[in-house]
Amino acid sequence: MAYYQSQPVAGRHFLQIPGPTNVPDRVLRAMDNPTMDHRGPDFGKLGKSLLEKVRQVFRTEGPVVIYPASGTGAWEAALVNTLSPGDAVLMCETGWFATLWREMAERLGLAPEFIHTDWRRGADVPAIEARLREDRNHAIKAVCVVHNETSTGCTSRIDEVRRAIDAAGHPALLLVDTISSLGSIDYRHDEWGVDVTVAGSQKGLMLPPGLSFNAVSEKARKAAETARLPRSFFDWKAMLAANETGYFPYTPATNLLYGLDAAVDMLLAEGLDNVFARHDRFAEATRRAVRAWGLEIQCAEPRHYSSALTAVRLPEGHSADALRAAILERFNMSLGNGLGPLKDRVFRIGHLGDLGPLQLMGTLSGVEMGLRVAGVPHRPGGAQAAMDYLAGNS
Amino acid sequence: MAYYQSQPVAGRHFLQIPGPTNVPDRVLRAMDNPTMDHRGPDFGKLGKSLLEKVRQVFRTEGPVVIYPASGTGAWEAALVNTLSPGDAVLMCETGWFATLWREMAERLGLAPEFIHTDWRRGADVPAIEARLREDRNHAIKAVCVVHNETSTGCTSRIDEVRRAIDAAGHPALLLVDTISSLGSIDYRHDEWGVDVTVAGSQKGLMLPPGLSFNAVSEKARKAAETARLPRSFFDWKAMLAANETGYFPYTPATNLLYGLDAAVDMLLAEGLDNVFARHDRFAEATRRAVRAWGLEIQCAEPRHYSSALTAVRLPEGHSADALRAAILERFNMSLGNGLGPLKDRVFRIGHLGDLGPLQLMGTLSGVEMGLRVAGVPHRPGGAQAAMDYLAGNS
Amino acid sequence: MAYYQSQPVAGRHFLQIPGPTNVPDRVLRAMDNPTMDHRGPDFGKLGKSLLEKVRQVFRTEGPVVIYPASGTGAWEAALVNTLSPGDAVLMCETGWFATLWREMAERLGLAPEFIHTDWRRGADVPAIEARLREDRNHAIKAVCVVHNETSTGCTSRIDEVRRAIDAAGHPALLLVDTISSLGSIDYRHDEWGVDVTVAGSQKGLMLPPGLSFNAVSEKARKAAETARLPRSFFDWKAMLAANETGYFPYTPATNLLYGLDAAVDMLLAEGLDNVFARHDRFAEATRRAVRAWGLEIQCAEPRHYSSALTAVRLPEGHSADALRAAILERFNMSLGNGLGPLKDRVFRIGHLGDLGPLQLMGTLSGVEMGLRVAGVPHRPGGAQAAMDYLAGNS
Amino acid sequence: MAYYQSQPVAGRHFLQIPGPTNVPDRVLRAMDNPTMDHRGPDFGKLGKSLLEKVRQVFRTEGPVVIYPASGTGAWEAALVNTLSPGDAVLMCETGWFATLWREMAERLGLAPEFIHTDWRRGADVPAIEARLREDRNHAIKAVCVVHNETSTGCTSRIDEVRRAIDAAGHPALLLVDTISSLGSIDYRHDEWGVDVTVAGSQKGLMLPPGLSFNAVSEKARKAAETARLPRSFFDWKAMLAANETGYFPYTPATNLLYGLDAAVDMLLAEGLDNVFARHDRFAEATRRAVRAWGLEIQCAEPRHYSSALTAVRLPEGHSADALRAAILERFNMSLGNGLGPLKDRVFRIGHLGDLGPLQLMGTLSGVEMGLRVAGVPHRPGGAQAAMDYLAGNS
Repeated sequence: MAYYQSQPVAGRHFLQIPGPTNVPDRVLRAMDNPTMDHRGPDFGKLGKSLLEKVRQVFRTEGPVVIYPASGTGAWEAALVNTLSPGDAVLMCETGWFATLWREMAERLGLAPEFIHTDWRRGADVPAIEARLREDRNHAIKAVCVVHNETSTGCTSRIDEVRRAIDAAGHPALLLVDTISSLGSIDYRHDEWGVDVTVAGSQKGLMLPPGLSFNAVSEKARKAAETARLPRSFFDWKAMLAANETGYFPYTPATNLLYGLDAAVDMLLAEGLDNVFARHDRFAEATRRAVRAWGLEIQCAEPRHYSSALTAVRLPEGHSADALRAAILERFNMSLGNGLGPLKDRVFRIGHLGDLGPLQLMGTLSGVEMGLRVAGVPHRPGGAQAAMDYLAGNS
Repeated sequence: MAYYQSQPVAGRHFLQIPGPTNVPDRVLRAMDNPTMDHRGPDFGKLGKSLLEKVRQVFRTEGPVVIYPASGTGAWEAALVNTLSPGDAVLMCETGWFATLWREMAERLGLAPEFIHTDWRRGADVPAIEARLREDRNHAIKAVCVVHNETSTGCTSRIDEVRRAIDAAGHPALLLVDTISSLGSIDYRHDEWGVDVTVAGSQKGLMLPPGLSFNAVSEKARKAAETARLPRSFFDWKAMLAANETGYFPYTPATNLLYGLDAAVDMLLAEGLDNVFARHDRFAEATRRAVRAWGLEIQCAEPRHYSSALTAVRLPEGHSADALRAAILERFNMSLGNGLGPLKDRVFRIGHLGDLGPLQLMGTLSGVEMGLRVAGVPHRPGGAQAAMDYLAGNS
Repeated sequence: MAYYQSQPVAGRHFLQIPGPTNVPDRVLRAMDNPTMDHRGPDFGKLGKSLLEKVRQVFRTEGPVVIYPASGTGAWEAALVNTLSPGDAVLMCETGWFATLWREMAERLGLAPEFIHTDWRRGADVPAIEARLREDRNHAIKAVCVVHNETSTGCTSRIDEVRRAIDAAGHPALLLVDTISSLGSIDYRHDEWGVDVTVAGSQKGLMLPPGLSFNAVSEKARKAAETARLPRSFFDWKAMLAANETGYFPYTPATNLLYGLDAAVDMLLAEGLDNVFARHDRFAEATRRAVRAWGLEIQCAEPRHYSSALTAVRLPEGHSADALRAAILERFNMSLGNGLGPLKDRVFRIGHLGDLGPLQLMGTLSGVEMGLRVAGVPHRPGGAQAAMDYLAGNS
Repeated sequence: MAYYQSQPVAGRHFLQIPGPTNVPDRVLRAMDNPTMDHRGPDFGKLGKSLLEKVRQVFRTEGPVVIYPASGTGAWEAALVNTLSPGDAVLMCETGWFATLWREMAERLGLAPEFIHTDWRRGADVPAIEARLREDRNHAIKAVCVVHNETSTGCTSRIDEVRRAIDAAGHPALLLVDTISSLGSIDYRHDEWGVDVTVAGSQKGLMLPPGLSFNAVSEKARKAAETARLPRSFFDWKAMLAANETGYFPYTPATNLLYGLDAAVDMLLAEGLDNVFARHDRFAEATRRAVRAWGLEIQCAEPRHYSSALTAVRLPEGHSADALRAAILERFNMSLGNGLGPLKDRVFRIGHLGDLGPLQLMGTLSGVEMGLRVAGVPHRPGGAQAAMDYLAGNS
């Protein structure tokens, strides 16, 4: 029974939404320490070590700005630091979160242009390249891509987007949202020439929500010098200056930083490549279960399968929300809901963050039992298929 | 990765030994509060409320002594408070823990007599009755039974033992070990006329080890007045006197008492009958899995099946310890080992305490995958059988 | 020894900066619970109850927006939701934080006008009234006041500011920063006709940093409809709409909300008026200590003394930072530093948040011993003077 | 407000009884980790490391037995492992706890002989020597001394007791209770030739109550081979055998062991000699305060002053319990009560465990304010005297 469960329920809640994820005890315990003086000497030591260490997770040698704000704030930060009112930005409609980011760009006075997809695959790379080639006078100032679209379970190929921009010979900045991929799916800020990587604490980083990040390239910092969108809270300049000595220009979210320190240590101890391989394996096991049930995976393009979550389509005439409600009530598990046009049509299984094979099997068993309880047509054997895979390959 | 895991392992450890069990967060958080003055006024209020409340878990209206000691201490307490050097006690060989209790009785200078079984069933009630009938001059001072034998997964019928003693018209005390049954399997101290119920904190009570209990009948208190085994730390007298006002004669294990307070609240909120029904259901699901695998359950008498754990026999020539080691390494789950003559022959699945259906499915999936990984001959489909049962009946 | 103390130091750190304050164990334990599904039914119940309950702390019946961002973010929110590019705002130079807020207004493209003071008193109310009377065509859109200036320990009289605005018959909005006063110093959003109250979690609310607040009047919501500063993350509209049912438009800082729930319960259990009286008493005790030492209080206007902190001036030729460093090293206490022009000239004693009389006495004793150790000229007897007061009046 | 305070009280409770002491956050957080399999491989690693490390705190190279039981249990363990029914033991009446230990010895069937003192000094070493010299045929099997008598604040000189036994040429075992001295006052099991050192977790070891210890000499192990008091739970033999590989013969108090691991690390990081010096300093500061108040210290022999606590006598006609109640209510501090004949005549200030100078000053200020509030005749200036000392010497 978790803190706010209103009914007495035995056993640990299965939080299998695609984030926030299950926070490991080690991280919770780190956060549960006294708040310290954020201007004192010990804070500087912590800050310096942490700001350095966190770069490894982004695979960058450049600075990473840490905001005491949730991920949506880091989206805003990426835009307001690099762009000016009316700037054209090329955004890719991968799903609900890409749509929200576009709406934010509009509210901030930018001129987003949207490359549509059918919400069943990642960003349309050839379309990006074509549009950039068209843009002879370089009106487009930035290309914005959601690396892992949390609403659909489709992962865009950032390496290919990079190559497309280069092939078009276009100077636009590349801004990438890794909120639900960082620390779960292979990602390389420097190697892929990303200018701003947007990230949040509550997914692969295994923290509660409340921290967010901008990894920033030299080119992005340069763009910031002339960008004219009003900004203050999210301004990189004061941040980067203060970070030099391990401090922050205004009060940081100290206890979440304790948690971050522990979480990054855990990721590096497991080894990032091992972390990614584990996510890949669990995602494959999940897809095998879905197929065995005879259900359809929302992502229609295998090269774009997400290793962080799998969105599953329900047969016509069946309600995904009724299924989720039944699973919550009977099996004490939270699954992700369908968003926007996918509302009630899909449910989403989060298999990211601090997760082991038996938690995954509990999760898939819960889905399979839920399908039966809720009367959703399916074949049994999905959990069995996942086990077959994991026992050969866990 | 738990506190002392020496390897970085993602995801929560599955602690599926038959105790200590998984301690719920609410209990851990309660324990994680500052230690208080055990002689101050607030302690008295806590103590009084707790000593009263805990009686409900034993289903007694009499006193329950709480020791700042692990369960083995409460075994000793039951003996030294009621018996005198050289006293004959009738004990029932249900398995390893019954054997240890007998050895303790010997070390304490008692004269235990052992009614043997084959470690595949609960106490032999007809044999108890027969032996008591024989004992015309009432040399036997106590009958000692382990309610749930943690080494075999066999639960003795205490109600029948009571009736046997009554049928024999014998005045012996009835001492019952409920260390691995209290809070998991239906148990009734008053209704079944038990004189001393021995219990521990780390199983159905969902606490870490470190507290133990004696529920004490009027007849037992009377016996204590003349019992001559030396005792001090475990003496009921000073305990019961101090408990009147909510205090203890020596320093209690304060932080574990905080946890006990939370744990009892949780059990009562769920409802004891619901708690027992949940354990029965999970035990049945587990046995269906074992049968589907084609393996043998250690308990050969269905009326004695334990709802707290299931011990599973391995086919000849296969090592249970090798299986457990493989499961620990590959799937991050601890299972119980075989004890005494069962060493390496059985493994034990704990399905007691703060457990939900998906944790159980994770557990059974882990066993099934482990059987495959370790090369133990079995049929797949055990987890599936458990799901079939739980989805109809969870 | 706290989590990040780099030296082994016995005993609890005294965090006596004017915020972040000492987080009570009950709040830390609440935060140390598993993160939950922020779209699930239990979250809605928590959210609804919390959004309602928190209003009492602001003494408002209107809505309070909760941001997953630190206090600086709530400053920005107050401005961007109510104002348009180039708007004139009347701000009051009470000290360092008022200056930072003005700089933020400038960076956001507003036209702040600054009413100067000498950093030794609260806002200059007659000057505000005079300036507003001058502003016949109502170019000034908002009056911004820091209720408790954390850099100087001077508290502005918001009730008087209200009366001044009314007396001038001016329609400007009243925006008030209560970051270091809310939950510590008497404050009344509704009664004083405040339009936006800005607050943070890490002072009187006794939480770690990471949450911030805008209490919003009807008039402010109306202003938001036409305000044209770009905004998205901080936009009230989506917030207020989602809050109706207890949810948030984007991921909230769940675990900090658990802590807020506990903290508000604690404040209401003690009673807000009792909380304020306690802060008043501790502030008076502190000032008596300072006077007994023969040192000067930075706040020169007794009607503006802060009940949250006391800034103390050092005699010429002595370094406040050297004193603070000595106290940190020898006595394991953090005090606040001088900011801006007060750098190295004052130190600040925080006496707000979860504080009892003996923690205050430890604090004042630490200052007195520090003065001696650091060779700062003073008379002994400050702690004694505080005790004399508290023992008569605690 | 601590977990079980029935009234809402701001600020941290001052637990200044002479144990249980304030448990450091680092220890509480360690304990707040999932319970692990006490028979698994990771437990063995933890156990082995911990059993080795803890020896340093006792300054022994021999084994230390750790019981999942409170300190009273370790008293019993020391007696039952080394003695036989009817054995004569020479015990020293230093105060209440020595009296309780003697009563335990009687209840266990031993024949204690008591060397009386006036409860205002440590053990009477010449009397011990004289009695042993008298005992020509070595009927006395053990000399039992409480190192630090928690009821009086008098510390016996164990080095001198050792020399007295040697001078008498007597083979008796030396059993020493260090429950309130270990980790606070210089103590050397090996160097002083102690045979059994009894200790508990909840004082200088900075843990909650629930663990206790026997450090055991070769001579004591040898005595155990022939000792005939019945024992089982407390038997060293099975313990020492299992400890060889890092395990325990029955379920250990796992989560308290986590805390012990953290606590021992903290003591060793500070350095035992530094820990003792800190306790000496705080005790001297406390005594200076008591003298400045014009009150009398219970310990009348300066060579026996305790560095762990100071018991203070009240003037005739004044109630120590009324004073303690007033301090608890007004200042949220718990002080120790008078025990046995000292009931209501003394109060005891604990200054041991995880304590810094400002906590001590808060404590002494609370006592001084309490004396005034409760109308106990005294001179002010005690806290000031302590500060004068600490600022010169902290």
